[in-house]
Parts: sequence; structure tokens; C-alpha cells
Amino acid sequence: MGLAQTPLALTLGDPAGIGPDITLLAYAARACEDIPPFVLLGDEAVLAARADALGLSVPLATVTDANEALDIFGDALPVLPIEIAGNVVAGRPDLAAMPAVEQSIEDAVSLVRDGAARAVVTNPISKSLLYQVGFTFPGHTEFLAALANGRGSDTPLLPVMMLAAGPFRVVPVTIHIPLVDVPTTLTKELLLATIRTTDKDLRRFFGLARPRLAVTGLNPHAGEDGSLGREEIDIITPAIESARAEGLDVTGPHPADTLFHDAARQHYNAALCMYHDQALVPFKTLAFEEGVNVTLGLPFVRTSPDHGTAFDIAGTGKANPRSLIEALRLADTMTRNSGA
Amino acid sequence: MGLAQTPLALTLGDPAGIGPDITLLAYAARACEDIPPFVLLGDEAVLAARADALGLSVPLATVTDANEALDIFGDALPVLPIEIAGNVVAGRPDLAAMPAVEQSIEDAVSLVRDGAARAVVTNPISKSLLYQVGFTFPGHTEFLAALANGRGSDTPLLPVMMLAAGPFRVVPVTIHIPLVDVPTTLTKELLLATIRTTDKDLRRFFGLARPRLAVTGLNPHAGEDGSLGREEIDIITPAIESARAEGLDVTGPHPADTLFHDAARQHYNAALCMYHDQALVPFKTLAFEEGVNVTLGLPFVRTSPDHGTAFDIAGTGKANPRSLIEALRLADTMTRNSGA
Repeated sequence: MGLAQTPLALTLGDPAGIGPDITLLAYAARACEDIPPFVLLGDEAVLAARADALGLSVPLATVTDANEALDIFGDALPVLPIEIAGNVVAGRPDLAAMPAVEQSIEDAVSLVRDGAARAVVTNPISKSLLYQVGFTFPGHTEFLAALANGRGSDTPLLPVMMLAAGPFRVVPVTIHIPLVDVPTTLTKELLLATIRTTDKDLRRFFGLARPRLAVTGLNPHAGEDGSLGREEIDIITPAIESARAEGLDVTGPHPADTLFHDAARQHYNAALCMYHDQALVPFKTLAFEEGVNVTLGLPFVRTSPDHGTAFDIAGTGKANPRSLIEALRLADTMTRNSGA
Repeated sequence: MGLAQTPLALTLGDPAGIGPDITLLAYAARACEDIPPFVLLGDEAVLAARADALGLSVPLATVTDANEALDIFGDALPVLPIEIAGNVVAGRPDLAAMPAVEQSIEDAVSLVRDGAARAVVTNPISKSLLYQVGFTFPGHTEFLAALANGRGSDTPLLPVMMLAAGPFRVVPVTIHIPLVDVPTTLTKELLLATIRTTDKDLRRFFGLARPRLAVTGLNPHAGEDGSLGREEIDIITPAIESARAEGLDVTGPHPADTLFHDAARQHYNAALCMYHDQALVPFKTLAFEEGVNVTLGLPFVRTSPDHGTAFDIAGTGKANPRSLIEALRLADTMTRNSGA
């Protein structure tokens, strides 16, 4: 039995956020659009209460094993139960729920590692709440890498964050750090490792025989031959040259401002950007609703909607499931492309 | 006689670049679109040779005074002569032409100061070539500010660069400096002065009674309450609060990545960004061809196409006059809005 005969594992996310809303809405959308089968690692009662709040009629079914989910999915949203402590109230986050939030992620990774699910799709979590109960990772991505490392090789994984909207893909090489720390965090080694992982996983999961990668400069006009900064000369160009020597199709450093208009985007499969806003500004400008967050460099496929918990609109009917739907679809496509 | 009865003063730019090409093409476009009358401060023979190279039939007329240009404009492209030393060859820049390049800018400013022209519109120059003949300004903008200061007040002008494409406008608060220098260059005083100038000139030249200004954060997620950097707390928020105390309509600091999608752009008249790429990436992503570079904070109106000399395509017919046409139109609109 190939992985294609297993469901996607969808995590709970913060139950007081819009995770339950978009999970229900994504399931309900299967009448009109193709939604790959998933199993939610969560709590049926929480979903039922949220469906009531939203005025949605969504059949739910608690399952005891992920492999029941495929058969059930046409008739009901399958839930693999995780007990949530405290009261779940939409829009009112509760620290008591945090152990269940973590458990859901851990269980999803276990399912995929055991071959019972195809990929991990994560609902949004609140890092600041998790920190209050001892969570120590910068985010989902690093937590997943640690879970994967737990039973993995001696070489720590370098997880790479990629945002994807159809053929438009961006990778921030440095991510959630203050801007002042970007020039010192950016090294040839980090950039080269990010290039390699992006190339490898675009081949493996995206059906690209020889991915075309475009690398930005750090400085205005990519440094203008050193007159506006030296990182292009000292760090970025050497990393690009090393990657090319390995046979990879990498161009740059490109001035970031002219890399994202319609015509420019035709020339690459992914743009590697030097810091958060250089990647996220063009991405969210062009793909605000439908973007998907993908983690490359893990031993399994992980996708996520490209937004947060949105506590302020949980339970109100304002949440848009588009990004979660695209995350489910992309996880489906990625696992199929990898021949699973 | 109001300024509306005077032409726009269009500078030569680097004659080996696409300035002559787009000048001819903009003039030729008057058959199909509204092109406000301008006078080129340049050389009729250079334009005639470029028109030949491009296979364009454009009537030219050397004038001896800018006020002749309005009458002539319907029949011929008016040229106020400036002697260019050396040979002008498209695509082959020549240092001998640099004195004429500078003279053209100086003369354009003089015409506007003397009331003989309405606004300065500049063709692209090559800073690196000008530096070789002793030009010491970071760019056009600073040179124009110095020319304006020459006869001006005791307070040095703070020129502010704004990029405009219809109602979408961005202002980089720091501009052509290495990224590593941005956090130290960004001060409350600089940001507040930039806010004030932008507000003042959007009122004066853009017909906005109370401009809505949106200010970005410097760091990812606008610093996330200090966990990803302190500049929002120490510099940006205090500047915004001071501006609000003066009655200005300023919001922020906003996370930059969610400030530029279609819905977000409806909430402001200009976005003030902390550095070059934060402003230029979204701008050129959305408005690659038609963007106009505007200098605020000068005693006169100055616009410019939002591209460089493009020596590689000068004389080939590939140059697109759209940005120059929009620059001419915006200079026209701005001077009319100011009641000139």
C-alpha cells in the first residue's frame, strides 16, 4: 500500500483560533472543489460546537485509527481524538489547551513516520502562548525539525521555509530575526545549504527536473558592485558559484526590486531572498489569500496555511479557508510527485 | 500669466542612454495620448540622429526661449540647445558629454525658478560616469536639492523620494545605503521630517486634503512587540506619535508584508518604508512599467521616469517611453494641483 492510500494528517492548531473554523469550511468545500482526504488530530466536540457557532452542518466522525479516515471521508470529517484540557472558547485562548496543541503536532509526525498518513498539514498556533508553557522553538518549523531529528541522522536538519502560490515560490534565507542581525546571520554556508535543500526538494516534491533558482542581493541594487554594501561580493556570489559548480541552476545576486513583476517571475521556479520582508513583501502582495507555507528539508512533507490564529475572528464566520485548502492540496500534490 | 502657460523642462539625461529614445517616443505618442507640452534641454542633432536610428519621423525645432515651446509643441519637439562635447553614440557613454548632462539639469532648475517652465522632468543619468568628472552627489535628487538650496533659505532642504503609480505611492525613508547601515541611519528625526514633508507635498501637489500615511515597521512582523527588534518601540512609534500630535493622519508601524495587497492599499495615500527594498520591491512588483519617481520637499516640482539609462538598449527601439510619459503627466497634474 503506497502513501497515496493514506490520509493527510491535519493538526488541531490553537483551538481558540480559526483552525476549527477553516477545518470545517475546508471539509464543507468538498462539494464544490477537490479536497484531498485528511484526518484531524483534535476533538470532535470542539468541532461540533464551532460548527454550531458558524451555522454549519458538517458531519463528524471520531476514528480510532488513521486508516479508517479514507473510507469515512466522503461521509464525515474524520477526527482522531486528542483530549483538550480546559474550556475551548472561540477567540479566548487558554493555556490549558497548549499540551493538546503540542500533542497534535507530535502525533501527526508519528503518523507520517509510521506510514499511516502521507503528510503533515498544520493549523495555526500561537507561539507566545506556547512559550508560556515551556515551548522553546522559534516556531512550528523548528519544532517539526526537532521531532524529525529525534529519531533521525546525526546531522541536524536545516528546515527551509518556502511560501508557494502556484508557480510563484519564495524562500527567506534568514527569517524571524531583527533586521539588524541579518547581515551577520547571512553566511555563505547558510545560503549554500538553503540553495541545496531548495533544489533537492523542488526536484523531489514539485516535479521539477532542474529547478531554476534566483537569488536576491542583500543591498539596494544588489550592492551596485560593492558601492552599496559588500555582502553580494563576499557571501552571496561565492555561494551561488559553489552551487553552480555542483551543477545547480542558480542565478543572481539579482536586485530584489526588479525580481517580482509579472515578466521577471517567469525566469525562476523559486526566489531565494536574504531576509523576511524581502521574501514576504512580494509574496503577500501578490498572493495574500492563497499562499501556502511549506517546510523543505524535512524527511516528510509539511504544509500550512500562510496566516495566524486570528483569534479576533474565530467563531465569527469571517475566516477564509482558502489558504488551508491550498495547503491540503499542495501536500497532496507534493506526496504524489515524490512517488509515495 | 500662470505657470500653466509654461512648458515642462525636460533634461537631456545621458545622451548615450535611452533618454533621447523615450523623449522622441513620448513626443510621438501625442497623436494617441495626452502629452503635456515640454521643452527638451538638449541637442537637436542628437535627437535627429537617434530618430533616424529608430526609424522615427519626429519633427524637431530648436528654440531660443522656453516660452516659444508652447506654440511650437503641436508641430515639432522643441529643443532649447545645450552643446554636447564629444561624439554621442547610442549605447556608448562618453565622459565628454558629462558637462552637458549637468548643464541641462542646472538650466532646467533655472528655468523653473525664473518662471519660464512649470516643473523639472529629468531623463536618466549615469551616476558612476558623472562621478568620474567630479560630480559629488548621491544622485539627481540631492543635486537638485543643492541647486535649490543655492539660492534658498538657511535650512537645508530634505529631499524626499516618492514613487507613484496612480494612487499607489511609496516613500523609502532611507534609500541608497547598505542594508547594514539602515538601523543606525533611521532616526526619529529623519522619520518625522519625512512624514512632514510627505504630508505637506501630498496636500500641495496631489489634491489630498488630509493625506493618510501608513508607516511600516523595520523588522519582521513590525518587531512583534520588541521580540524581533526594538526600532519600532524606540524610533518609529515615537515619530508616529509626534506626527499625530501635530494633527497628521499617520498609522503604524505596520508589518510590511501585509501592507501592499489590493485591499490593504486602499487604506492609505502613501506608505512610508524604512529602507530601499521595503519600498521598491512592492512598488516595482505592482508597477514595473508605469512608475514615476517624484522628489518631494523641493521648492519646485520634479518628476522622473523610474528606470536608468539602459545603455544596452539605447538606439535599438526596445526602450519603453511609458514611465517618461507618466512622469510628464504627473508633473503636469502636480503643478496644476498646486494652483500654478
